[in-house]
Amino acid sequence: MTDKPFGVNISMLPVLMPGDLTEAFVNLVCEEGIVAVETAGRNPEPYVPRLKEAGVRLFHKVPAVRFARKAEAVGADAVIVVGFECGGHPGMDDVPSLIVLPKASQELRIPVVAAGGFCDGRSLVAALALGAEAVLMGTRFMATKESPMHDNFKQWMVNAQETDTMIVERSIRNAARIMKNQAAGTVARMESEGATLADLLPVIAGKVGREAYLSGDIDMGTIACGQVVGRITEIKSVRELIEDIMNEARVSIERLVRRISD
Amino acid sequence: MTDKPFGVNISMLPVLMPGDLTEAFVNLVCEEGIVAVETAGRNPEPYVPRLKEAGVRLFHKVPAVRFARKAEAVGADAVIVVGFECGGHPGMDDVPSLIVLPKASQELRIPVVAAGGFCDGRSLVAALALGAEAVLMGTRFMATKESPMHDNFKQWMVNAQETDTMIVERSIRNAARIMKNQAAGTVARMESEGATLADLLPVIAGKVGREAYLSGDIDMGTIACGQVVGRITEIKSVRELIEDIMNEARVSIERLVRRISD
Repeated sequence: MTDKPFGVNISMLPVLMPGDLTEAFVNLVCEEGIVAVETAGRNPEPYVPRLKEAGVRLFHKVPAVRFARKAEAVGADAVIVVGFECGGHPGMDDVPSLIVLPKASQELRIPVVAAGGFCDGRSLVAALALGAEAVLMGTRFMATKESPMHDNFKQWMVNAQETDTMIVERSIRNAARIMKNQAAGTVARMESEGATLADLLPVIAGKVGREAYLSGDIDMGTIACGQVVGRITEIKSVRELIEDIMNEARVSIERLVRRISD
Repeated sequence: MTDKPFGVNISMLPVLMPGDLTEAFVNLVCEEGIVAVETAGRNPEPYVPRLKEAGVRLFHKVPAVRFARKAEAVGADAVIVVGFECGGHPGMDDVPSLIVLPKASQELRIPVVAAGGFCDGRSLVAALALGAEAVLMGTRFMATKESPMHDNFKQWMVNAQETDTMIVERSIRNAARIMKNQAAGTVARMESEGATLADLLPVIAGKVGREAYLSGDIDMGTIACGQVVGRITEIKSVRELIEDIMNEARVSIERLVRRISD
């Protein structure tokens, strides 16, 4: 796919099925000469020595300033701070990027990467102003030509408003921001009726979502999606998207310079 | 208090007690040569002709892009867009400033003012990058030397974290972000037990809050407060605050310029 350096994500959310492969994944990453790894969902401390030894940079992803401090303390090379608006798991505190990002970047010495709400040059510049060294975009890349999702989802994203996501799984303390679709409605109803994780699993399992986004059935499965979907109006290639972001960012910074020189 | 131009806020939330003074307030504003008026809570259309005729600029405050469009359509001179993180009434959609602000500013032709999450030079620059012409700060000004709040509240604000606010009154479709205190806990409990507006009024009434913040009883009354309280570490004078914001903004923009010239 590429001859350039790339990173790998290791999800360390609580294991729902028997068997935790985290250790095996970490070993594989170290052996294969991967340059960076993103972890989330649990304290990465046990894996820090092995990763350091292999020269792999550890980016730990957190939804709150207190977890960012902890990640720095246990030896992460950088933290990714997600805001309430992000797709996937925004944590339980409901604090948006505009608050959590500048607070984390002012408190930490290691670099902070912003995630949740970013999609274009304007928002990139906002992130940099708030102290981020970079932005991470999930939802925006789902709506690109190269994304493996079925076109039905891409079309849904182009049409969706910022109000077309919802948070589910709060009742099981695993808050997740997802597309508002039929499956999301089912989960919300089941939760209001006291469903347990075991009850919810047939609807929320990752493999159901994966089946949905390959098949194009937009009502099947719970699909992670950020509120920034309401700002996506076009399917671009990844190259086009990144070039547009860089150009918009330059224009935006030039506009800021004119404002202070007035 | 000042010989400079100043504006007036006219709250047009649904009237809880008999008697709606909106008309009388609008007339007073027009007669007294006030330069600008902020309205919120209801469509300002009926008052537009009278305000235009008197040369008063109308800033209508909204918590969603669709209301911003409507405000422009009925003749507002500018809109103030509040995000989910704001103190007071963030609306029912839970969309933070990072999303609602750039979307509104890209769709509207009239100026957009950002509110919710702003307190310093970094966040001012972020707002400008996202398309705002200005920021409105509520919570940050509560924590100034000149603010009429009792010192107990100012000290609370300096110590508070970004997680020390909560949203109440969702059940009566009047979502309000307030300080987490004893009164807030009472409201949340009453709402979970099915309380009506009439039941809640003795706790949520504005005059109770006013009595609290003058007396210094931080557990009495529901006090509007934004999540940005978690970023306030110091009580400054208004002059000091504004000068610091302007200096920080300049430094922040210079840093952005260095990033694109690298």
